Amino acid sequence: MATPLAPHPDRALPAEPGVRAIARRIYARTRSLPLVCMHGHVEAQVLAEDEPFGDPAQLFVVPDHYVTRMLVSQGMRLEELGVPRRDGGPVETDPRRIWRRLCENWHLFRATPSRYWLEHELAEVFGIDVQPSAQTADVIFDRLSAALSTPEFRPRALLERFGIELISTTDSATSDLRYHAMLRDDGLGDRVIPTFRPDAVVHVGHDAWRKQVEQLGSLTGADTSGYAGFLEALRRQRETFADAGALATDHGHLSTDTTPLEDSEAARVYERALAGEVTEAEARAFAGHMLFVMAGMSVEDGLVMQLHPGVLRDHHEPTHRAFGSDRGFDIPVPAEFTRGLRPVLEAYGHHPNFRLILFTVDETVYSRELAPLAGAYPSVRLGAPWWFLDSPDGMRRFRELATETAGFYNTSGFVDDTRAFASIPARHDLARRIDAGYLARLVAEHRLSEDEATETAVDLAYHLPKLAYQRRTP
Amino acid sequence: MATPLAPHPDRALPAEPGVRAIARRIYARTRSLPLVCMHGHVEAQVLAEDEPFGDPAQLFVVPDHYVTRMLVSQGMRLEELGVPRRDGGPVETDPRRIWRRLCENWHLFRATPSRYWLEHELAEVFGIDVQPSAQTADVIFDRLSAALSTPEFRPRALLERFGIELISTTDSATSDLRYHAMLRDDGLGDRVIPTFRPDAVVHVGHDAWRKQVEQLGSLTGADTSGYAGFLEALRRQRETFADAGALATDHGHLSTDTTPLEDSEAARVYERALAGEVTEAEARAFAGHMLFVMAGMSVEDGLVMQLHPGVLRDHHEPTHRAFGSDRGFDIPVPAEFTRGLRPVLEAYGHHPNFRLILFTVDETVYSRELAPLAGAYPSVRLGAPWWFLDSPDGMRRFRELATETAGFYNTSGFVDDTRAFASIPARHDLARRIDAGYLARLVAEHRLSEDEATETAVDLAYHLPKLAYQRRTP
Amino acid sequence: MATPLAPHPDRALPAEPGVRAIARRIYARTRSLPLVCMHGHVEAQVLAEDEPFGDPAQLFVVPDHYVTRMLVSQGMRLEELGVPRRDGGPVETDPRRIWRRLCENWHLFRATPSRYWLEHELAEVFGIDVQPSAQTADVIFDRLSAALSTPEFRPRALLERFGIELISTTDSATSDLRYHAMLRDDGLGDRVIPTFRPDAVVHVGHDAWRKQVEQLGSLTGADTSGYAGFLEALRRQRETFADAGALATDHGHLSTDTTPLEDSEAARVYERALAGEVTEAEARAFAGHMLFVMAGMSVEDGLVMQLHPGVLRDHHEPTHRAFGSDRGFDIPVPAEFTRGLRPVLEAYGHHPNFRLILFTVDETVYSRELAPLAGAYPSVRLGAPWWFLDSPDGMRRFRELATETAGFYNTSGFVDDTRAFASIPARHDLARRIDAGYLARLVAEHRLSEDEATETAVDLAYHLPKLAYQRRTP
Repeated sequence: MATPLAPHPDRALPAEPGVRAIARRIYARTRSLPLVCMHGHVEAQVLAEDEPFGDPAQLFVVPDHYVTRMLVSQGMRLEELGVPRRDGGPVETDPRRIWRRLCENWHLFRATPSRYWLEHELAEVFGIDVQPSAQTADVIFDRLSAALSTPEFRPRALLERFGIELISTTDSATSDLRYHAMLRDDGLGDRVIPTFRPDAVVHVGHDAWRKQVEQLGSLTGADTSGYAGFLEALRRQRETFADAGALATDHGHLSTDTTPLEDSEAARVYERALAGEVTEAEARAFAGHMLFVMAGMSVEDGLVMQLHPGVLRDHHEPTHRAFGSDRGFDIPVPAEFTRGLRPVLEAYGHHPNFRLILFTVDETVYSRELAPLAGAYPSVRLGAPWWFLDSPDGMRRFRELATETAGFYNTSGFVDDTRAFASIPARHDLARRIDAGYLARLVAEHRLSEDEATETAVDLAYHLPKLAYQRRTP
Repeated sequence: MATPLAPHPDRALPAEPGVRAIARRIYARTRSLPLVCMHGHVEAQVLAEDEPFGDPAQLFVVPDHYVTRMLVSQGMRLEELGVPRRDGGPVETDPRRIWRRLCENWHLFRATPSRYWLEHELAEVFGIDVQPSAQTADVIFDRLSAALSTPEFRPRALLERFGIELISTTDSATSDLRYHAMLRDDGLGDRVIPTFRPDAVVHVGHDAWRKQVEQLGSLTGADTSGYAGFLEALRRQRETFADAGALATDHGHLSTDTTPLEDSEAARVYERALAGEVTEAEARAFAGHMLFVMAGMSVEDGLVMQLHPGVLRDHHEPTHRAFGSDRGFDIPVPAEFTRGLRPVLEAYGHHPNFRLILFTVDETVYSRELAPLAGAYPSVRLGAPWWFLDSPDGMRRFRELATETAGFYNTSGFVDDTRAFASIPARHDLARRIDAGYLARLVAEHRLSEDEATETAVDLAYHLPKLAYQRRTP
Repeated sequence: MATPLAPHPDRALPAEPGVRAIARRIYARTRSLPLVCMHGHVEAQVLAEDEPFGDPAQLFVVPDHYVTRMLVSQGMRLEELGVPRRDGGPVETDPRRIWRRLCENWHLFRATPSRYWLEHELAEVFGIDVQPSAQTADVIFDRLSAALSTPEFRPRALLERFGIELISTTDSATSDLRYHAMLRDDGLGDRVIPTFRPDAVVHVGHDAWRKQVEQLGSLTGADTSGYAGFLEALRRQRETFADAGALATDHGHLSTDTTPLEDSEAARVYERALAGEVTEAEARAFAGHMLFVMAGMSVEDGLVMQLHPGVLRDHHEPTHRAFGSDRGFDIPVPAEFTRGLRPVLEAYGHHPNFRLILFTVDETVYSRELAPLAGAYPSVRLGAPWWFLDSPDGMRRFRELATETAGFYNTSGFVDDTRAFASIPARHDLARRIDAGYLARLVAEHRLSEDEATETAVDLAYHLPKLAYQRRTP
């Protein structure tokens, strides 16, 4: 017999009845606010072309590395989950069988945010009313497939239904932004905006780097055969992004180091990189230097700078070779912000045009480094709990560890950071519930009035993201 | 007047009445399950010879470094607690006075797990009904002494009474396993099994190392005067352990480094060590190399690999010189797993024969490194909260920090890790209560159904340890 | 309309009604106990001269870097808050406008301890009954100003009214202790005592260092032109402090390193420093060496040693240049105690004359390093949660993370560590509430009896600080 699927209206609110009653009232004031999605990985193409989503396996399993890594951790192979091999080798192609593998292993996801989001999506977006299991896999697959073939489940229809006021994509520095142009032509230019992500052109040690800077050169008309032209190309492309509505840049680095190099040294490393002779140490130094340079460009053009450091990508090289990046084998390393960010904060930390939003997957820095930095530097804001930490208890710990030093108003509100378009409402909804619960505890402990708590909740859910990501007047 | 000792049936369950009610129901389903003790330090000799336990001081104080360190931290000397000096110098010999020193200082243990376990043992194993104190020390001592002289309190009787289905000892690589042979002869071979602990033969910098490898050589008939023979000796001895029922190996290292050396370099260091010329850096490199080698042997013979890293042993050298190891002066250092384990996980992380169970005394790695690793690599499982963290709030934090990323099914269930045989039921019982409480909160927050929570609790208490420590089919 | 300001009698107690009822009873037993203030930064001069406090801006805003940093983090400039520039440049001088800037930004402090303390001070010390806001700024300013001009609000009257039994100031090693002499003459010598803080004479790399050691020389009559005379000067000045009632020394270091140098090497570095030729590495090594030396002096003279490590001071050099130190730009770095303290603990860790009280702004060391060290070494006690961690949730986490391993009796009770005299009762009161809440949970979870919990609460609030800071019999 199938177990019913009916997400409880009080889910993820605190258990204690008194606190829950307060949390309910606070949440009631934020639950229907529009979604402001300042950082994520939905492709502009999806909204530009507005094609129907694929089958349930493609929507819920194959591209979601939270889901595939958990199944792999219990012995399944990526091939069995339909993840394409780089060598074109055979993988599962039957979406029904892929979907079934998730359903049969539903218990593995107990207490994980993936389970929480999937339940929300299945029930509230697709109207599914039974829990996934071996028994229910097929019937759910059929219902999902039927829904996905209707116009109501096309991307733009969902954009509307989800109440997404603004969504920011993440785009390579070498993107031609063609899909954003299509969106602008369709009147969606103010609602779907790009973000400038230059990782591929600043990490000089990566295989594809040279090709990327060449592409950057031809896109911008700047001569990237030298360091000065490279900087010029970046400036031009940032401007192009800003003209297309971008409010921010985004930077993924292993370390937070922002030590600038002498211009001549930076030029030397750049040239060695072009010649394919750069060492690992030089590449690291150049990456830190480029964070400093990018901060300077942000002061010039007012784009908000986001930093996502501390993840060792592709920890399992054989998986990387076979399946490419973003397959669940990105593992955090200890993070350090105090010394790493000092150069950039001494240079620009008090500059009115500079805004730096910091993310982490290392919780130890919340109270030790991030909150003290955000509670002092006017340029710094704390991003939402990221990746593994975007979970009920993870978000609660962020508030508990950061707020007493940073306050609420040095945080930048929730970002969903997701590739999974249909999970966006679930993610924002969960964050609103957790914030309501945290605020309700403060009220119950007489540390905040309920009026203040409610106002704060609305700010966290809606106003702060808009404020934090406002383009700085250049 | 003596304060009654009556452990509350609801102890260590959450305080909130609604959550407690759920936790009670979950705990009711796990409290009487058999004990599966996959990792601990009870000596095989104790169960093989089945002699009565000594006096209360020997049972509860002298060998328990949790207890002696706390008394020492408040100014008592190890001599006053009867801990034998290596030089044979005088120490307290009157068990009644040693026991009294614990009772008089009972308040020092408030809120510690030692206090919690001791209360459980005294009340539920020995039927003591008054709190230890200066006033009650003698009467409790007499009652304990009387009990210990009865057949009901012999080791095998307690094994029965405690419901221990399986208990794994920890044995030096140079053990001849004679007590396990005696146990097998008595029909207890499937119930009391050895674990292979090769620390003394892989840490080449330690004083006793040379003697240990010689012993390994004579035990196995392999020629340990060279590196190749050393590896052969290890292989043979692992096989001997496996034949005696061992399911696992166990490795205590300061760091998690698993970088392999070239064979020739490993052989060179091995020879320098035999010549007494090894440097500290070489010893460290060899230890990391041997973790890699041992992982390879696990792939060959299917023994589960346990890693206990991150403790600086014998922090206070004068205490070490006077009293030997395990005297309470082992202090954790920061742990790092992501980079340290990379070599071994790239080599064997996806191999079906490989199983690696990770422990830590550094909580910062739960959400940052351990849960992401266990939530991706099929070979990795997370061990129970270890040592200082095997406590009510420590175990709760483990679940809160690890579960959202690793799930429940990438953890390996509770291990008591104790020398104190009589404390085994108390420790398992506490773990079951804490897990019930954590699961009950998930139910109360509508993140899990009560059926699922109960099934999960039973898995954590009973099935997962058996599953995680299953010998891998070689 | 103004929002009433009426701190709730149950504030900061746990929300769950059953736990709260227990917490209330425990708190009722500690709330009126005398205040023992073993570490703080109130100037002796304030109590010696007993002049009226300045205006509300000077009392609540200008010198409080918790308050100014938060306002700066949201774009205000230190000049606008009346913080004096080192170059004498113009800053806001109107206290009413400075006070208004705080009131207008009251929402920034939601959930911060500053807000909590300020509310307590305003309501319970000054009888203010409306929340600060743009509307109420002026009326509150006027009422505060009126109060401050009355004799009841002079420092000594408040000392009496606050029930401060003992307060320890923090004094440079080069202080002539003249204000403590005045206090002694007025019969307050046993109530207001100095603490010896030698940072300025041991950090040889700092600009003012040479001047400081010259001053130390002339104060003590020792010849500080050589290392031996420098040590002699320190010994004499420690003795002078002890004669003036000092019980303790206090040491602020970036790292916990306590590695001693050879005497000859220490002398060499000292001489190079006098010659202005010291390197950064030498200065670091000398600082570690001096911690070791100071520990030795503590064994000789019985002064309790306090260590406050792990803060990178003056992170934003431009702010430091313009406004000096202690302006909110001191940011923590990762801390390490196990290896750093090993030399000093191997040498003196078991010495009956040695007492070392450890503080941290890095919570990761609570369970990993501090509790294991304090739970083993008889010399070690854990200081109260420090700085950013002196907050409701911060203090709760300290108890949760440290107690299970260290117990309560290896902690040293609350210290307010504040410059803000009028906030002292608020801070102690908050700590008593949080401890009551933590203990109440243990009672509700049947891990401690209520009698024991109450006795423990009284010990934490009153007896432990007196005991921990007792001068060791030399």
